This record gives sequence, structure tokens and C-alpha cells, in this order.
Amino acid sequence: MKFNIAVLPGDGIGPEITQQSVKVLRAVADRFDHEFKFEEAKVGAIAIDQLGDPLPAATLELCKNSDAVLFGAIGDPKYDNDPSAKVRPEQGLLKLRKELGLFANIRPVRAYDSLIHKSPLKPENIEGADMVIFRELTGGIYFGEKSTAEDGRSASDLCTYSIEEIERVAHLAFKAAEDRRNKLTLVDKANVLETSRLWRKTVTEIAKAYPSVKVDYLFVDNAAMQMILNPKQFDVILTENMFGDIISDEASVIGGSIGLLESASVGTENALFEPIHGSYPQAAGKGIANPVASVLSAAMLLDHLGLKKEAETVRMAVELSIKLNVCTKDINTDNHYSTERVGDFLESVI
Amino acid sequence: MKFNIAVLPGDGIGPEITQQSVKVLRAVADRFDHEFKFEEAKVGAIAIDQLGDPLPAATLELCKNSDAVLFGAIGDPKYDNDPSAKVRPEQGLLKLRKELGLFANIRPVRAYDSLIHKSPLKPENIEGADMVIFRELTGGIYFGEKSTAEDGRSASDLCTYSIEEIERVAHLAFKAAEDRRNKLTLVDKANVLETSRLWRKTVTEIAKAYPSVKVDYLFVDNAAMQMILNPKQFDVILTENMFGDIISDEASVIGGSIGLLESASVGTENALFEPIHGSYPQAAGKGIANPVASVLSAAMLLDHLGLKKEAETVRMAVELSIKLNVCTKDINTDNHYSTERVGDFLESVI
Ligand SMILES: CC(C)[C@H](C(=O)O)[C@@H](O)C(=O)O
Ligand SMILES: CC(C)[C@H](C(=O)O)[C@@H](O)C(=O)O
Repeated sequence: MKFNIAVLPGDGIGPEITQQSVKVLRAVADRFDHEFKFEEAKVGAIAIDQLGDPLPAATLELCKNSDAVLFGAIGDPKYDNDPSAKVRPEQGLLKLRKELGLFANIRPVRAYDSLIHKSPLKPENIEGADMVIFRELTGGIYFGEKSTAEDGRSASDLCTYSIEEIERVAHLAFKAAEDRRNKLTLVDKANVLETSRLWRKTVTEIAKAYPSVKVDYLFVDNAAMQMILNPKQFDVILTENMFGDIISDEASVIGGSIGLLESASVGTENALFEPIHGSYPQAAGKGIANPVASVLSAAMLLDHLGLKKEAETVRMAVELSIKLNVCTKDINTDNHYSTERVGDFLESVI
Repeated sequence: MKFNIAVLPGDGIGPEITQQSVKVLRAVADRFDHEFKFEEAKVGAIAIDQLGDPLPAATLELCKNSDAVLFGAIGDPKYDNDPSAKVRPEQGLLKLRKELGLFANIRPVRAYDSLIHKSPLKPENIEGADMVIFRELTGGIYFGEKSTAEDGRSASDLCTYSIEEIERVAHLAFKAAEDRRNKLTLVDKANVLETSRLWRKTVTEIAKAYPSVKVDYLFVDNAAMQMILNPKQFDVILTENMFGDIISDEASVIGGSIGLLESASVGTENALFEPIHGSYPQAAGKGIANPVASVLSAAMLLDHLGLKKEAETVRMAVELSIKLNVCTKDINTDNHYSTERVGDFLESVI
């Protein structure tokens, strides 16, 4: 089969990890006789530096016309410490999510048996943990009206949600729960927020259409605690944009390294695949970044294209690399492999 | 010395834990020759049930005229699962915070040596962890305008901050850092939120007046991860209302039980002391609730009244109880003591 894949390496370690995924995808194409056409475009800080825009029109166009987008990472500390910067790399990613209509961000989290000792959590607390977080991605406080008073002495961000926005991501989450262990936990702050109460009402309503799925409700503060106390209780977690951002980064400690966690962002027309880690600028160019999160994102991309066997092959390659300890130093502290050598290994076993 | 202490037991386990604190405070008054006048008032679900108002005027009046408020807990599941309830227990607490001007919520978190094995985190990750979280408490998305569309199909919550609101809590946090290890971490989401950028700008400005304090900036998603990966890196954490709610509940896992964590909420005129745990309705009336968080809140109350030696005595009593394993079953699973017996022990060693 033939597919167009847009590749947006972005900033920091983005390019070096994405390169490994492209290598792996090429190996998949070879082995399974597909044709993947990769086309690269700029996004984030590098796009600002070179083109003055964190999401140049050509990049957006390329993504819209692709079958899937492989995304690296964005962000640069020079913008983080300049609160008055008008143009920031993150705007590129946020605009891309919005323009492509990527309303659901799907983040699987699991504890690999062979890495269980890497986690700051006790093995008995995480052994067998296996969940998927469905984070709403194009609404909430990320996209509501922002303003700063003329005198610069106050600011505001508006969090809004409509029933439609809640429903479409909720349906995806309920369907996933049906295919998994039939449990869904809504994380909200319904004791304080009006938007959370709308989430709770809407999800309670939708639940009726999925009678096999048991629904739990957790306040976000409690959820942040439960995630560490007893992560095994979770199957599918459904939550709004900002809570999902926080909870899913927190959940990464279960896997032992944030360098392992992939994500898919999907809409009705488009789909984008990216590691949940950021641009990690301190590591850029040093060959120490873990490419696994990006490679597993590429596996989700294959799933999305309907190439299930191919996706499984990539996942098996990753599991093998972890079992054999062919890992970057976040995981293999004794005898670590470079980003590229991990990529080479994965390519070689496809 | 003579002090008026308002006692608001509230809901769930609130009354039984608060009773132990009052007992301990009476013992302190006896031993150190003070006069504490305790006066009780209703708040939360019980106030709705009996008086139709989660914060009756008489309760507010009592608090305003007190030297300090000892608060139990509020909340009842019958309201949580009814998103359309117009009156909710939480409104009582939120209104109380607002009316008393309690803009700073101070939450110390530490790992007790003798409880280190209770935490879901590995001992080597938390040994020696010792931080204080300063959470802004009367602003942000908790108190901004809320609305639901007439047709009920969309809702919004506004997050607002002014420089003044940020400054007053920031100064408290910087002063605390000066008295501690001279490190302050601002937790925000300045790469997305306008209000966070105002926080970052304001805190950067204020930092100049505290040259001995090293300031770090962390995005909230990263902070939620770092809290578990390496809690020892934190000394003073400063953050806005919603992020503080999430991060501090999460941080409770370090101490081994949320039943140990106290908090102070302070303003210019008033101060309120409450455990960070909630009303835990499933445990109410069973004598299994841990009174320590409330008793340590009472110690913070004594500090606030200028009674440092007295506060220290209460803390030493708690440490002794933990060392001797005179603990409720969240901590002492083998041979646990009831809420009341822990209180009796603490009273007896004052
Ligand atoms: C870079 C940032 C804007 C982004 C977010 O907050 O969504 C990131 O943290 C993520 O989770 O993808
Ligand atoms: C009960 C609730 C409104 C409250 C809050 O969110 O502030 C609680 O979680 C807390 O942290 O004191």
C-alpha cells in the first residue's frame, strides 16, 4: 500500500529521534512491501528562527494532505524564560492540533516487566499496570480566550467546553474501554468547575450506550494521588485538556522513563503521532535521547493506517531491544547505546 | 495568653478528627497555662442539611472574630454525583477562604524516617525529602466567572490573576525559602497560559528582592513528573490555585499517607488550619480516620498564634506516636489504634 507521511522533526532532540522512526518505518515498508512517501517540514522554534512562524503555511498544508503526521518535539528555553515573547514554538503545535482537528490525544501507559526496577515506584505497586489516557486536545483552557489588561497588571485564560467537544472524545474512550477491561475513569474537578460538571453530566449520559463499561469519577487532585498509590486500578482514563497534560506526564513515572511513552492525536480527518516527552534541549545533539517513544508513536501510526501486523512487528522489535538492554542511558545506565545505535538495532530486527 | 478558636468540624470524618485536635489543644492550654476558648459552628454538607446554606452567616461571623479557625473537612458524595445541584458543600469552604481573605495555603510535605517504607515510592527516592508548597488560594479558575449556556450545551470557567494576587503569596513563599534552603520553584504553564506568563514575570521581578533565593521554573506537567522522580530537589514550591490543588495531593504520597498532612491558610486578618485530606465519607464514624493531619494543623495554628514552644510540643508528641506505632490503620496495618485512642495518646504526652 501507498501512504504519504509528513515528518515534522521540530526542536531539540526532535530531529534525532524522528530520524530513527523514519528508519524503522522504511524497514517496515521494505519488509511488508509498502510505499511510504516521507516529506519533511519545519515546526516550532526552528520554524520561528528560519521562517518567522512556528507553523508555516506550507507545513500545515503538507500535514493536511498527508495520511499521517510523524511529529518530533517542540520547545526552546529561550522562549520559556521570556514571558513577553509574542511568538512561541508551542503555538505551532497548538495551532496544528486545532487546524487538523485532533481532538483526542491517546496515551498508553504500561509497566514493562524488564524495566520495572527503573521506576521510582515500588515494583509491587506497578507490576501489571496498563492504562490508556484519553485527553481532550483542542478545547478547554488551552484554546479559550486569553487576555492581558492594557496596563499589564492582570491576565486571564478562559476554559470552555461544549457537549459536542466532550462527546466525541468520550465515545472514543468508551469504545477503547470495551476493547480493554471495561472500566473508564473520568477525571475532573466537578466540585469546583462548571466545565467539569458539564463533563460529568455528558459522560454519565453517554455511559448508557456502553452498558458493559463501569464508570468511575475522580477529582483531579485525588486522581493525581491515586495514579501513584495504585495505578493498577486504572484502565481507560478520560479527561479534559489541562488535566490530561498533567496526569499523563505524571503517569510516565510508571513506565520507568518518559522516553518510552508514545501518543496518538486523532481527529476525523487527520492524525498525528508524537512522543509525550518534550524537546529536551539539554540532550540535543548528544546522541543520548531515547528514540523508543517516537518509534512506538510510529507503531501507533501504522495501526492508524490499518497496518496492524506491521505495528505489532515494530512493538516486538522495541520489546526485544528492551529485553536485550539495547537501550539509551535513561534506561541502561551501565552500558548504554546511542540514539542512532538503538535505531539501527530496531531497523535490523524488523 | 487568651485566644478564641473557631472550630468547624464539617462533614465525614471531619468531626472525629477535629475532636482529637481540640483535646490536644486543651492539653496544651493546661500545660502552658493559656486560655483557649473553643466555639463550634457548622459548615459544608451538614450545614446545608440543617440550615440550607454551606456557610451560614453565623459561622462566617464566628470565624471573622476568632484568632484562628480549626477546620475539619467538607464534602459529601451525594453532591458529587449530582452535577446539577445548585448548592454544594464545597461552596462553603471556597466562600470561607474568600471572605476571610486566606490567599496563601501552606502545605509542608516530608518523609518521616520511620514511615518511609509506607510510601509507594522507593525509600532511596524520598529519604530526606522536605518541602513546603505555597498554593495561591483565593484566585484563579476557582473564583473566576463561571457560566453555563442557556441551553445547557456549553459551559465555561474563567481563570484570572492580578499582579497583586501573585505578589502577596509570592512574598510569603520567598520569605519561607530564606528560612529554609533558599530554593524556590515556580510551577506554572507559561508556555500556554497568559495567567502563567503573568506569574512568571511577577515572580522574576520579586526574586530581585531575595538575592539569596535561587529560583527555578517548571511547567506543571513536568513538575507532576519530577515530584515523583526526584522529590528531594524541591524546597519551596510556589504555584497558582488549581495546580497547587493537584500537585499537593500528589505530593502526599511521599509522606506515606495523606492522613498525615497538615495545612495552613493565611491572609492578612485571618487564618484557618485544616488537614489536606477530605471528608472521606466511607470512613466516617468507624474510628479509623487518622487524626494526625488535623493535630499537625493544630500545631501550625499554635505557631500562628506565636506559641512556638507549644507547637513544637505537639509535633514531638506526633513524632513519638509514629515512632511507637500508636497509629491508625492507614499506617499501622498490624495492630492499629482507633482515632480516639491516637488522640488520647497525643493528649497524654503533651
Ligand atoms: C508543549 C506543550 C504545549 C504540550 C501541551 O501542554 O499540550 C506538551 O506538554 C504536551 O503534552 O504535548
Ligand atoms: C474540597 C475542595 C474544594 C478543595 C479544593 O479543591 O481546594 C480541596 O480539594 C482542597 O485542596 O482543599
